[in-house]
Amino acid sequence: MDAQHGRPCSIAATLGIVGDRWALLAVREVMFGNHRFSEIARNTSAPRDRLAARLKALVAADILERREYQSSPPRHDYHLTEAGRELAPVLSALRAWGDKWAVEEPPVRVEHHGHPIRQQVVCATCGEPVREEGIQRISTVPDWDLTGPVVRG
Amino acid sequence: MDAQHGRPCSIAATLGIVGDRWALLAVREVMFGNHRFSEIARNTSAPRDRLAARLKALVAADILERREYQSSPPRHDYHLTEAGRELAPVLSALRAWGDKWAVEEPPVRVEHHGHPIRQQVVCATCGEPVREEGIQRISTVPDWDLTGPVVRG
Repeated sequence: MDAQHGRPCSIAATLGIVGDRWALLAVREVMFGNHRFSEIARNTSAPRDRLAARLKALVAADILERREYQSSPPRHDYHLTEAGRELAPVLSALRAWGDKWAVEEPPVRVEHHGHPIRQQVVCATCGEPVREEGIQRISTVPDWDLTGPVVRG
Repeated sequence: MDAQHGRPCSIAATLGIVGDRWALLAVREVMFGNHRFSEIARNTSAPRDRLAARLKALVAADILERREYQSSPPRHDYHLTEAGRELAPVLSALRAWGDKWAVEEPPVRVEHHGHPIRQQVVCATCGEPVREEGIQRISTVPDWDLTGPVVRG
């Protein structure tokens, strides 16, 4: 989305779509099972006009879909698409960081098959936990090395 | 941070600190090894005044630290704190989503000990992959159930 500006990057591209706190909090509410505008507005405290704009953009980006749940008068609610459901790891990572660094007590306890979850990112190819030391990032875009001065065209 | 408004939530608290695309892209650059303001500005394309404000906030939030690397004239650069380094899974999750849903070709290839990484979130308690079906979330805050209408005191 903003790949034209700054480093071409999937993180930047994702943030170009959901890089607004109201967008991600709206996705959180739908993931929790709160599908209606009024529920999403109350639980996020998003200003209604900004929330309406974000929901429209999330539908346009195919992250949410709008479904009619009542026909007269017509009423719509919001559901996650596959792309929307796949934002779950983003929200989990934000939650894990916040539980440790941004709140006194975790306000939501997450259980996994009945035990407290301890999330860990592993590499499915080798089964090992992913740590920064084991990672190498390689730019596939000419003129955009990852480190140091960048000279463009 | 905005736990006073809307649902008390670690995701919201995290987004209250880093919920701005320039903040997360600045963290990305420092993680890549680009520590100086001019490098961060160029590689993110952030407007310089907004970037300066974000870096200041990230230092205040103890995600970045500012270090003098030259004394006359004094020059400073930015380094990740422990809290900053622990944002790596957030950036990884944003990258993985973007690689699949937001770009044509991944502009950065990530390798893990020499093989292409395939990130997977597992529960370290039981070793099983984390899937939405196996997750239960329990609010620990009175009056804030996760689903449905919320009636507040």
